[in-house]
Amino acid sequence: MSRKWNFNAGPSTLPVEVLEQLRDNLVDYHGAGFSLIEASHRGKEYDTVHNQAVGLVKELLGVSDDYDVLFLGGGATLQFSMVPMNLLQGEKICDYTVSGAWGKKAYQEAMKLGQANAVFDGKAGNYTDLPGQVSPSGDSSFFHITSNETIGGLQWKSWPDTGSVPLVADMSSDIMSRPVPVEKFGLIYAGAQKNLGPAGATLVIIRKDLLERSDDNLPSYLNYKIHAKDNSLYNTPPVFSIYAVKLVLDWLKARGGLEAVARANEEKAAVVYDAIDGSGGFYKCPVNEKYRSLMNIVFTLPDEERTGRFIKEAEAEGFIGLKGHRSVGGCRASVYNAMPLEGAVSLSRFMDSFARKNG
Amino acid sequence: MSRKWNFNAGPSTLPVEVLEQLRDNLVDYHGAGFSLIEASHRGKEYDTVHNQAVGLVKELLGVSDDYDVLFLGGGATLQFSMVPMNLLQGEKICDYTVSGAWGKKAYQEAMKLGQANAVFDGKAGNYTDLPGQVSPSGDSSFFHITSNETIGGLQWKSWPDTGSVPLVADMSSDIMSRPVPVEKFGLIYAGAQKNLGPAGATLVIIRKDLLERSDDNLPSYLNYKIHAKDNSLYNTPPVFSIYAVKLVLDWLKARGGLEAVARANEEKAAVVYDAIDGSGGFYKCPVNEKYRSLMNIVFTLPDEERTGRFIKEAEAEGFIGLKGHRSVGGCRASVYNAMPLEGAVSLSRFMDSFARKNG
Repeated sequence: MSRKWNFNAGPSTLPVEVLEQLRDNLVDYHGAGFSLIEASHRGKEYDTVHNQAVGLVKELLGVSDDYDVLFLGGGATLQFSMVPMNLLQGEKICDYTVSGAWGKKAYQEAMKLGQANAVFDGKAGNYTDLPGQVSPSGDSSFFHITSNETIGGLQWKSWPDTGSVPLVADMSSDIMSRPVPVEKFGLIYAGAQKNLGPAGATLVIIRKDLLERSDDNLPSYLNYKIHAKDNSLYNTPPVFSIYAVKLVLDWLKARGGLEAVARANEEKAAVVYDAIDGSGGFYKCPVNEKYRSLMNIVFTLPDEERTGRFIKEAEAEGFIGLKGHRSVGGCRASVYNAMPLEGAVSLSRFMDSFARKNG
Repeated sequence: MSRKWNFNAGPSTLPVEVLEQLRDNLVDYHGAGFSLIEASHRGKEYDTVHNQAVGLVKELLGVSDDYDVLFLGGGATLQFSMVPMNLLQGEKICDYTVSGAWGKKAYQEAMKLGQANAVFDGKAGNYTDLPGQVSPSGDSSFFHITSNETIGGLQWKSWPDTGSVPLVADMSSDIMSRPVPVEKFGLIYAGAQKNLGPAGATLVIIRKDLLERSDDNLPSYLNYKIHAKDNSLYNTPPVFSIYAVKLVLDWLKARGGLEAVARANEEKAAVVYDAIDGSGGFYKCPVNEKYRSLMNIVFTLPDEERTGRFIKEAEAEGFIGLKGHRSVGGCRASVYNAMPLEGAVSLSRFMDSFARKNG
């Protein structure tokens, strides 16, 4: 089979075993006489899948019963607004670490709804570094970080201590890529389309006491409390997307859980970073080495001409999605959970060869 | 193949030809070397699908260039709030026809955001009738109807004249089931999971001049103007769901377009209504005959015991999803576009036989 190595930043490669299961049950779901893509969200087949997906999130991340696990629509972009809509209280003060394009988007949406402070802004260093120590402002309703910047390619390696101020994280591009001490967070959200499954489902993990902050007068779809009360079945959830997420979670569990997944991700990313660092300066990664992302590896070549040719020749060899985000240029290899080690090794060989020929 | 007749109200039966196409391209999308479920929303494969879906909506419904066609997440439930958030102006007055459970939900969300008037409320007649003539209030920002009440089983057969006040319709459960004079509407929205495809995609058709009403300070995801400007690619859309919608639209076009689809739907619904009306009162449809829905056929049996047994015996014969909504009880057969005539005929035979044995 001529399967391409898909390095796109999201939507992005899914485990081929998951794709095969989706295919094999697409017309007839395990002999039910219908497809899950046309199954009622109130029926027993979907009900089982839904609760298994919630249960697997809890099991893999070690989420305690102090939290609710929700599946919503609208992606992380809707969460940028739902978080302040639901969590702001009192003077509507909240803190944001602006670590890159996504942190900035989250911050800008919060500014529309409250008094958002940028307690860190990496702009001066062109978003290649993270803050050493950060603390919440007085009376802050919550403290927001972006655990992995998909465009900038930098990733938090440890978590800030925000005391009694709830820590909120956009984990869209590294959810389930490593163990996370969920108990340190008030709320975690993630669009599915990188590490979890297809675009269209959004995971929200929220500490139950924070649900009390949701005002009854909020639009119902934008109210976490309503979704939590109805186990994400207040309205029709994205049934088939959640089914695909459930299969991805099964696959992660079968790989040995998040400790094992994290080790595999470290090994995989090291292969590509080694190709960069061993190229004698032909490839360069602008990110502070301490915060290099294990998910999105950004690098530059000596000039535009070779960058363009690199992407083109790579594509001809079956490596797709290596073009950096249009806002920053250069190259980016996204090596999410579902990218096999073999893909990273093949890419590193291609990078070595291209550097030798064009250095 | 032991395919069940799926009469669920949504998510609901899809054309088996569409399911087969989804299956055949699930692992490898037309030889691209990846699945569309893992394809970048900025890549050429998805870009083609996206624009084809938009184009097919325009072609099938005859949408002029005065309108934008959007695909969003969050379902009709999110639209209940997005409509007033974007369209209310001045004194924030708006009009709602409360024709059943869904019209009521839309109305209740609007009440949170503005001065919503119930210009019609079918409560006294237990939501079995629609208004004769209705007119907008003075200074109304928009006039909202629910073209088909999925739970109550009643459907607008002609459209109110609201003059210069934009007519807004929730068409979730009868979109693409018949031709619609789109030029009479300011905005049409519909969750996909009944007549369009899988849950998780929401269609919005909005007259371009109304986009000027969207305040720049609205949360970005909730701002129609932003989605329209970026052709629904402001953030990652539900890629695979929109692909499935595109296949359903292809299928509708191949059936001869909406005139032909409407004729087939009339024929199909008549078969089931005939079974009700010809049962000598064993089955009863509570809805004013003029407004009977061609999509959701509600009926009652003489008592609870026979109702329960009807549903159970039907299920054993391969007819699923016939239980009425928990809020109203009784039975409901949803016969959306994708339900073949054969399914309706088989159901009507079963109904005849059950009535004879239990009458």
